[in-house]
Amino acid sequence: MPANLGDDEPLRPGQITPNAIAKQFSQLDLPGPERLGLSSQQGASRPAGRDGRDLTAALSNLNLPEPEALSKASAHRRSESQSQDLSEQLSKMNLPQPERIFGPDDTESSTSRGVNADDWEKVQLADDVPEAVKSPTLAHFRRESRSAEVKPPAPVAPAPAAAAAAPAPAATTKGAAKEQMINPFDVQGGVDEDGKEIGIDYDKLANRFGATKIQPELLERFERLTGRKPHPLLRRGTFYTHREFDKILDLYEAKQPFYLYTGRGPSSDSMHMGHLIPFLFTAWLQEVFDVPCVIQVTDDEKYLLNRDAKAQQAMLKKNPQDKKSPYWILDKYHEMGQANIADIIACGFKKEKTFIFSDLDFVGGQFYRNVVLMAKTLTVTQIRGVFGFDDSSNVGMMHFAAVQSTPSFCNSFPQIFGTRTDIPALIPCAIDQDPYFLLCRDSADRLKYKKPALLHAKFLPALQGAGTKMSASIPSSNITLTDTPNVIKNKIRKHAFSGGGATQELHQQNGGNPDVDIAYLYLSYFEEDDAKMQRLADEYRAGTLSTVQLKDECIAKLQDVVGTFQERRAQVTPEVVAYYQDATRAIDPTPGPAAQSWVQ
Amino acid sequence: MPANLGDDEPLRPGQITPNAIAKQFSQLDLPGPERLGLSSQQGASRPAGRDGRDLTAALSNLNLPEPEALSKASAHRRSESQSQDLSEQLSKMNLPQPERIFGPDDTESSTSRGVNADDWEKVQLADDVPEAVKSPTLAHFRRESRSAEVKPPAPVAPAPAAAAAAPAPAATTKGAAKEQMINPFDVQGGVDEDGKEIGIDYDKLANRFGATKIQPELLERFERLTGRKPHPLLRRGTFYTHREFDKILDLYEAKQPFYLYTGRGPSSDSMHMGHLIPFLFTAWLQEVFDVPCVIQVTDDEKYLLNRDAKAQQAMLKKNPQDKKSPYWILDKYHEMGQANIADIIACGFKKEKTFIFSDLDFVGGQFYRNVVLMAKTLTVTQIRGVFGFDDSSNVGMMHFAAVQSTPSFCNSFPQIFGTRTDIPALIPCAIDQDPYFLLCRDSADRLKYKKPALLHAKFLPALQGAGTKMSASIPSSNITLTDTPNVIKNKIRKHAFSGGGATQELHQQNGGNPDVDIAYLYLSYFEEDDAKMQRLADEYRAGTLSTVQLKDECIAKLQDVVGTFQERRAQVTPEVVAYYQDATRAIDPTPGPAAQSWVQ
Repeated sequence: MPANLGDDEPLRPGQITPNAIAKQFSQLDLPGPERLGLSSQQGASRPAGRDGRDLTAALSNLNLPEPEALSKASAHRRSESQSQDLSEQLSKMNLPQPERIFGPDDTESSTSRGVNADDWEKVQLADDVPEAVKSPTLAHFRRESRSAEVKPPAPVAPAPAAAAAAPAPAATTKGAAKEQMINPFDVQGGVDEDGKEIGIDYDKLANRFGATKIQPELLERFERLTGRKPHPLLRRGTFYTHREFDKILDLYEAKQPFYLYTGRGPSSDSMHMGHLIPFLFTAWLQEVFDVPCVIQVTDDEKYLLNRDAKAQQAMLKKNPQDKKSPYWILDKYHEMGQANIADIIACGFKKEKTFIFSDLDFVGGQFYRNVVLMAKTLTVTQIRGVFGFDDSSNVGMMHFAAVQSTPSFCNSFPQIFGTRTDIPALIPCAIDQDPYFLLCRDSADRLKYKKPALLHAKFLPALQGAGTKMSASIPSSNITLTDTPNVIKNKIRKHAFSGGGATQELHQQNGGNPDVDIAYLYLSYFEEDDAKMQRLADEYRAGTLSTVQLKDECIAKLQDVVGTFQERRAQVTPEVVAYYQDATRAIDPTPGPAAQSWVQ
Repeated sequence: MPANLGDDEPLRPGQITPNAIAKQFSQLDLPGPERLGLSSQQGASRPAGRDGRDLTAALSNLNLPEPEALSKASAHRRSESQSQDLSEQLSKMNLPQPERIFGPDDTESSTSRGVNADDWEKVQLADDVPEAVKSPTLAHFRRESRSAEVKPPAPVAPAPAAAAAAPAPAATTKGAAKEQMINPFDVQGGVDEDGKEIGIDYDKLANRFGATKIQPELLERFERLTGRKPHPLLRRGTFYTHREFDKILDLYEAKQPFYLYTGRGPSSDSMHMGHLIPFLFTAWLQEVFDVPCVIQVTDDEKYLLNRDAKAQQAMLKKNPQDKKSPYWILDKYHEMGQANIADIIACGFKKEKTFIFSDLDFVGGQFYRNVVLMAKTLTVTQIRGVFGFDDSSNVGMMHFAAVQSTPSFCNSFPQIFGTRTDIPALIPCAIDQDPYFLLCRDSADRLKYKKPALLHAKFLPALQGAGTKMSASIPSSNITLTDTPNVIKNKIRKHAFSGGGATQELHQQNGGNPDVDIAYLYLSYFEEDDAKMQRLADEYRAGTLSTVQLKDECIAKLQDVVGTFQERRAQVTPEVVAYYQDATRAIDPTPGPAAQSWVQ
């Protein structure tokens, strides 16, 4: 549970009564991402309605934090707000940009940046070229080289023209040119003939995977049908390609059922900001579509991954008294998954329509049957080609594609869909997960199941890249979900890559480039106000908005998002975690608000 | 349920009262293999005791067959008995041997015979050379060639000196010599330089796998400790090698817990005589040791096996209305597994100490955790080497070794062993399953689990071999468990390979060879009386016992075994099948009769 709680509307001492607490909880309203600043205008006015009342009743039956704890948390949050005010004042003083202050150290770390696949949430994609998948000539999927360490890709711009916005590549080692290589276990940008890192070419990636670009017309139709403005991550191009999202809109229009599926491979107890964002987006989609959502936590995969061998050895070293069996490590992944599930719940998934599962707990029964069906459709050749495995890979990883594909088939969840097989999944995921769903979509035909539809995202760049792996064990490398407002401020100030001028004078003279500015990018994920984003970009380019000012905009937004997350996270008791994972709980697959099927 | 029931002591009409039925059921006494003619002298006097009473009470709560059905079955059995009397008279008339009557047809079919791996129950083995398993140079495991069709091996003698007793090889195609090749999916005897089939060299196989020959001293110790004469299959050399069976005896002597594990891959609704025998043996071991037994039904594997693709296509062809999804085929394997489980139960496993599970139903939870642990220890290289898979194999089969290994670890069954990890399994199995447990024993060390011990059997030859695959779809190829006494008689007379003289005169002159005689061999599996077996062998060699007479001895024994089986099988209601598969039912792992833990 996070150490720091926050509350925008703290209860005054006289207000701390059971009723007031219950009322606050109903306002917190775990389901519904509006409160995390993600809603469109329409979403903001979503009535608490029956949901809120049910939730209040449910929460009152659970182990809630004591009122004192809440008020302490509010007090804590207030003190953080004060330091935020201070930082705002400082930013108006036009001080030198933090990057430049820490120049020498940061020059090195600005050679490349991005997110490595290992730290990425399990979310996913698909394809319309089954022949390519079936064929053993999957050359375009094969790795040119293997490396134990994942090189983070270059940062990408939030603008649709990713290639144009790619930052100046930095020299690494001299050598032959290399194609970029993206799969669920490895993300490496290309290297040019001079040995310079090129960064990820997302257009090329989309072409290679045969994914369809998300066009303005599709988003217009989305808005027309749902009455909701597309989420910033969607309209600002982080989710940039899709497969059959149009067919999902057809179903929505016809009031036919579909469901959301996303997931996560638990690699640490606490999730990063980067992990959070796709879940916030998926929760927003659930809010908009009002459909069931299943979330797979691949604790099994994380154990099976050979790449985690070092981390696992380190785990055992830290706990020599437990060094009895690899079972202990497996158990640790399960524990991390459980902690992650609490974080995921706090993103605002509708409790009455969401089923979150650990593979270690849930694989079995109807789900296992579909794993077996999938596994038979996948040859070793395909898996080798798509994921780059070789004969030294363990058979668990070879087989895991079947486990990750299985939630795409609705009858894997009999408590939601019974024996129906005709309800498709929509999978919001990062582009590196596409290979799983390329295979899955091809197999779906052969299994007479529905192909999943997909929305795929570009990688969200790390706060700072440059050889530093985005990692929970390196606090300065990212925003974690337990960071205090002050820590968030310092991390952005110190480490967020800036597109500003090298000095204050140069910035005022030549302006900055918001397209490669991490603060601008992070802000763009959450800021609903398009006019404000445009204004900030214009002023930044003109040099009238300083890097510090831009960063402070980002800091304020992140503090709000993380603070609100932390408030919610504090409410997620073990009972709530168990509730979301209860596989015996019936969920009504019917879309729409008429389908509220709260089961105590 | 078998169409033909039998009863040695049919109820007379006046006796058909509920009490009389209940009394009969208590005498049937499902647990305990004595009634199938498998018991030692000591076993035969086993009291019905508490078991019998509990069973009567339990059965009276279940859906029993109507008394009418039972008496009809008895009547049916009587009419079969009459034809048996006739056959006995005919056999005394010294008619020409059936083989010779059907000479021209059978000459061809006597070129080779035996059992193919696919028709074999899932039972298994292990090794003490972990290096060999870990190494990618598992050349001795690799196939020299692959064939879609499994060639049955040559018949083997019941005597320990299998190689010496190998029958005269028959010419096949001319070609280069080939080593024998044995793995769980393929059983091929060697071929000599002249292209002749050599038959399986079991001594060579034992050496290659590094298994330990079962020596008389081990069997003497078994008898001394248990007070039971070793089972005919054990003392007559069908179970011929072991791994650490001596350590299991150590545990037995120290009254420490261990358990039995065996299994079956369901390939048809009804099991053969050949399928039955290892279960009868395992039930006998359970009777002797009084320990828990777990039985894995690998319905998942049968679906995953590529070799069954033809059979699966045929299934779909037969049921075009169901040709909707491969799910239907998977379901069929599950159904076959359920039918097989009823047959397995009828072999006499102690209900209070036996857990039978379908992989499709049971894989999950703690079991799945151990599957994941196992899967991580197995590389693609190992699986390719040990099982002969290539890149066109599906990843389910690659991974399946982990699923078959997992029942070797006691904490896979929390309802029996809780979280204990220190209780080893004893696995009675056919030698072709050894590769699974070679891998498993090696991995057990790394997982800090107990290695399973093994008892491995030679293949039981098919009733008739020679290009005819032992198959449920070819009724004349084997004794099925639904065969009537008359059918058994005809099959043995017509199809059982004879070691007798080519004509009656030659037989009287030169005598016969019981070592290659299928009737003698089959009889040896069940006949407790060693003196009688010796007498029959001597008289057969002397030519004073005719082939027909020897066959009639076999026929009578098989009729008794199958008839008794059918009686029991008729009592196995769906409720009983569900009971044995109830994963929530607690089983006391403590060995010995004090541990009767009947749970209603």
